Amino acid sequence: MRRMKTVVAIDIGGTQLRVATYVTDSQTPLKHGHTTTHADGENPYDRLTALIESVWDGDVQAIGISSAGPLDPHAGIILAPPNIKAWRNFPLTAKLTERFVVPAFLDNDANLAALAEWRFGAARGHHDVLYLTISTGVGGGVIIADRLLQGHHGLATELGHVTLEKDGPLCGCGGRGHLEAYSSGTGIRSFVADQIRAGRVSSLGGGESAKEIAVAANAGDALARESYQRAGEYLGIGVANFLHTFDPSIVIFGGGVARNGPLLFEPFEASLKRHVFHPRYLEGLTIAQVELGDSAGLLGALTLARLKANI
Amino acid sequence: MRRMKTVVAIDIGGTQLRVATYVTDSQTPLKHGHTTTHADGENPYDRLTALIESVWDGDVQAIGISSAGPLDPHAGIILAPPNIKAWRNFPLTAKLTERFVVPAFLDNDANLAALAEWRFGAARGHHDVLYLTISTGVGGGVIIADRLLQGHHGLATELGHVTLEKDGPLCGCGGRGHLEAYSSGTGIRSFVADQIRAGRVSSLGGGESAKEIAVAANAGDALARESYQRAGEYLGIGVANFLHTFDPSIVIFGGGVARNGPLLFEPFEASLKRHVFHPRYLEGLTIAQVELGDSAGLLGALTLARLKANI
Repeated sequence: MRRMKTVVAIDIGGTQLRVATYVTDSQTPLKHGHTTTHADGENPYDRLTALIESVWDGDVQAIGISSAGPLDPHAGIILAPPNIKAWRNFPLTAKLTERFVVPAFLDNDANLAALAEWRFGAARGHHDVLYLTISTGVGGGVIIADRLLQGHHGLATELGHVTLEKDGPLCGCGGRGHLEAYSSGTGIRSFVADQIRAGRVSSLGGGESAKEIAVAANAGDALARESYQRAGEYLGIGVANFLHTFDPSIVIFGGGVARNGPLLFEPFEASLKRHVFHPRYLEGLTIAQVELGDSAGLLGALTLARLKANI
Repeated sequence: MRRMKTVVAIDIGGTQLRVATYVTDSQTPLKHGHTTTHADGENPYDRLTALIESVWDGDVQAIGISSAGPLDPHAGIILAPPNIKAWRNFPLTAKLTERFVVPAFLDNDANLAALAEWRFGAARGHHDVLYLTISTGVGGGVIIADRLLQGHHGLATELGHVTLEKDGPLCGCGGRGHLEAYSSGTGIRSFVADQIRAGRVSSLGGGESAKEIAVAANAGDALARESYQRAGEYLGIGVANFLHTFDPSIVIFGGGVARNGPLLFEPFEASLKRHVFHPRYLEGLTIAQVELGDSAGLLGALTLARLKANI
């Protein structure tokens, strides 16, 4: 009896490691498992390989891996993960290939969420896809003519870090006026905190999270509303720039801040229409939310491995 | 005797039509010709087909066409050319295919200049290419993993029309704060004219061209120098954004304004370094001038036809 061809997908998070084995063409795992990334006296790599062994099944053709950046997808190296200190310049794909004797492929979580939504989620059937995740930061992933945009160093589509105002507010990266500095949860919080420090009257105290600010906005607080208004306006400018740049047929939003509905998306859509320089960019353009949720990392890793290994 | 396989390339300009026939793999035309686009009592399409017939040779496999936009490369339609009034929504590739019974492929001049430089010019051997032309306006073309970025509506890489300052100066398109409004010849002229109207003292009168302003700058005029300084600074912000977006291995500049050497490129490079948010984007990055000059349109059209017809 010939064994089924399978792919092992890995989603590396700062708190959890998740691994699943998939039969070709299926998005339902044959076997799957998860464990905490860190445990006393053990290193994350040994925990990962043990987890892989526990779900290993069938005739594994390739391994796909999703991880937070920064990383080098071409060389398969994790560069400086914020939550796994031991993995600085860590040659993850080479080590897994040596250990399991199958090719391994790596890319960052935003790129692989885009790939997963394109293959299994909200962007099925689209060829040109812009994905933006808006949470603590702003991340992006882009599919062009059915291929993931990776770039020469594997650093393409860092879409949170495009400058929208040269002398704008400070970004987490140290730059100024980046999209992330306006439209991320951090940007929304900082705006409110700055305004309150400057003496603005509000039901807020200045230390609230983006989620708490959304609650206040929906309860009618003017400053809270303004903070989302501003986030949506700059998101519209950023997305207009990305339409002029990539001309996608769909824009998909993920991340907690993007779950705020009209609070963010009414000012966003008004701004997008105002800043697009030709109406043809909006013809037939779909604007949607992600569909895959938590499984996007595994499904993106699966899709990457299938594409790269030509399965 | 079997006849040579050939491609016919067409470069449509507002004042001149140029056509050449190339043997597969050669960049030296077998036959070529040109004529004025307009002539009393004749329409440009008849002038074009007569010119094509005059250089038609060998076993023609495909026709490639470069034209100013706006146009729809997927449908092969010229939409609203500024200099050929009769060609509004003109189905050029369908008409040529019907007439000459070979497939025809169309794209805009900036995209095809990028393709030509990638195949024959400054970007030979690169897989990820950013091309910017800086003259009266700012145009762009991008190659990603050896493929031309066209977009869903064929409107990708309108790189002159990304917003760099929400409330910045007016752009020719009606938008505000676009890269083109700062760094094009028009942007440089407008800045000088505005400053002089505001009472600024200069050797300039306010009606000079970007070229004349460059001469004054090189002669030491402070306002003229400042106008190029500002153009270079915003060009650096724009290119930093494009590195974060596309992560190319080469940036190529064409167009008259880009021929001003250090006047533009010293402030550009300082600004680029300041605005790139991670030094890896600059590792091994080549910054170069175009090599092909006038023949870029024909060679881009030739390359497009070869790629699309799989020759």
